[in-house]
Amino acid sequence: MIRRLAIVGVGLLGGSVAKAVRAGGLAREIVGVGRDARRLEPALRDGVLDRVTTDAEDGVRGADFIVLATPVLAIEGLLSGVWRSAPEEAVITDVGSTKGGIVRAAERLTEQRRLAFVGSHPMAGSEQSGYGVARADLFRERTVIVTPTDRTEPRATKAVTELWEALGARVRVLDPGAHDRIVAAISHLPHAVAYALMDGTARFEADALEFAARGFCDTTRIAASDPDVWTEIFVANREAVLGGLGRFRTALDDLERAIASGARGELRAILARARDARETLR
Amino acid sequence: MIRRLAIVGVGLLGGSVAKAVRAGGLAREIVGVGRDARRLEPALRDGVLDRVTTDAEDGVRGADFIVLATPVLAIEGLLSGVWRSAPEEAVITDVGSTKGGIVRAAERLTEQRRLAFVGSHPMAGSEQSGYGVARADLFRERTVIVTPTDRTEPRATKAVTELWEALGARVRVLDPGAHDRIVAAISHLPHAVAYALMDGTARFEADALEFAARGFCDTTRIAASDPDVWTEIFVANREAVLGGLGRFRTALDDLERAIASGARGELRAILARARDARETLR
Repeated sequence: MIRRLAIVGVGLLGGSVAKAVRAGGLAREIVGVGRDARRLEPALRDGVLDRVTTDAEDGVRGADFIVLATPVLAIEGLLSGVWRSAPEEAVITDVGSTKGGIVRAAERLTEQRRLAFVGSHPMAGSEQSGYGVARADLFRERTVIVTPTDRTEPRATKAVTELWEALGARVRVLDPGAHDRIVAAISHLPHAVAYALMDGTARFEADALEFAARGFCDTTRIAASDPDVWTEIFVANREAVLGGLGRFRTALDDLERAIASGARGELRAILARARDARETLR
Repeated sequence: MIRRLAIVGVGLLGGSVAKAVRAGGLAREIVGVGRDARRLEPALRDGVLDRVTTDAEDGVRGADFIVLATPVLAIEGLLSGVWRSAPEEAVITDVGSTKGGIVRAAERLTEQRRLAFVGSHPMAGSEQSGYGVARADLFRERTVIVTPTDRTEPRATKAVTELWEALGARVRVLDPGAHDRIVAAISHLPHAVAYALMDGTARFEADALEFAARGFCDTTRIAASDPDVWTEIFVANREAVLGGLGRFRTALDDLERAIASGARGELRAILARARDARETLR
């Protein structure tokens, strides 16, 4: 049982943590921190939050469990204030989509003051954002990657794993570097590709868009994602994203060469290989 | 009322035409043509087809409405036999995803023997294929592009438009060249991108795939499409597909450059432009 849960950033992810913890009766008190007090009001009215503040240091003071759920670069900026104000016994995690920078920054602070921090990444995003789309069942049956290092306090990993599992998620453990490469491949790269496909079509062939059917809409669905969130993710995970884009270009070059040459056997082999790989997914 | 409808190729599209026509009582007799007689048996047993044959010329003989629904390059190969055997009064259409080559081939044949042909493209494909997934409601609320030219018999355009509308579709008219450019942009290009994204990830970062969530799955869904069908489409519409890939690369280059430079304002502007365009779609 959590005594006081502080959630900094009450959007889709932070709001869903709050709703799920409330629904499960897992915390006695939930404090929400946001930049704009008016945007926290719906969660207060819902009874999902007990108290709100626009001051992160005030919000985390006295909390025994802290979840940092702002956009990813803002999380790094929050850490030093959290380290100043969080109680000794607090367990701290975040929900950022990249982990290398955040974990490194937290470990630098831990050299000064030992706090129990471990990074998390719930694979439960959406192209929608904000508290209005938060749901208590957002994490159910989803994977949450938790990223301890050899410098992480074991009690942080244990408590954070237990929280995600209590919210219905499956927890997987990866080191922060492996996490960042893997999410670049299966999340950040598809977002970059979807944004580029949508942008190129709208810029160069806008008259075609009225004919867009399910194939185009599915392939570009995640291009509707929040530009602020994704600017931060692409910058925060730049090296891994550029690596993923390079590998994608290799595959695209191979496919384009086969189309241009009209070599049907080779073209069919590429398409069949991709189809077979796709069929191993749900 | 159609007296005898001949459908050459009884897969997803041909089978759905047969089911929808049968369900609507729009034809007295439906004849199915396929390469493999055993694969036509389910449609006979269902009562969707009245007669089957593996000989296209035999199948279209005596038909007053003919729908060519094989993969796209096979349609071109079928035309001369259809032109030899179809009755004078027959209305002929096809459901191929590219129209330039088919319409040109049909118009060359029309110089020898005047038949009422017009091309169609129902925008109702699926990554699934075969009669097993055919549905009577496949065309309901979908767009069918019909591609007459100044050499098309008006009665062909009229009868084919009426058939698609009777199956619940909205009909749009485009010339074959505009059709091929537009479908390259909103269908063939997304397929190429999805195939390359799936192929590159499976070849170079297979360990990431177990973490694939909704974003990756949506963006690559159409990479599960039939390699035989898509080999033909990419070859048949090669010029337009390569043009689309070039424009996509321009957009991808711009995005990649903004990520690499870390220029957040520029990066955010690209993402916001793509997001705004995506939000104009359903």
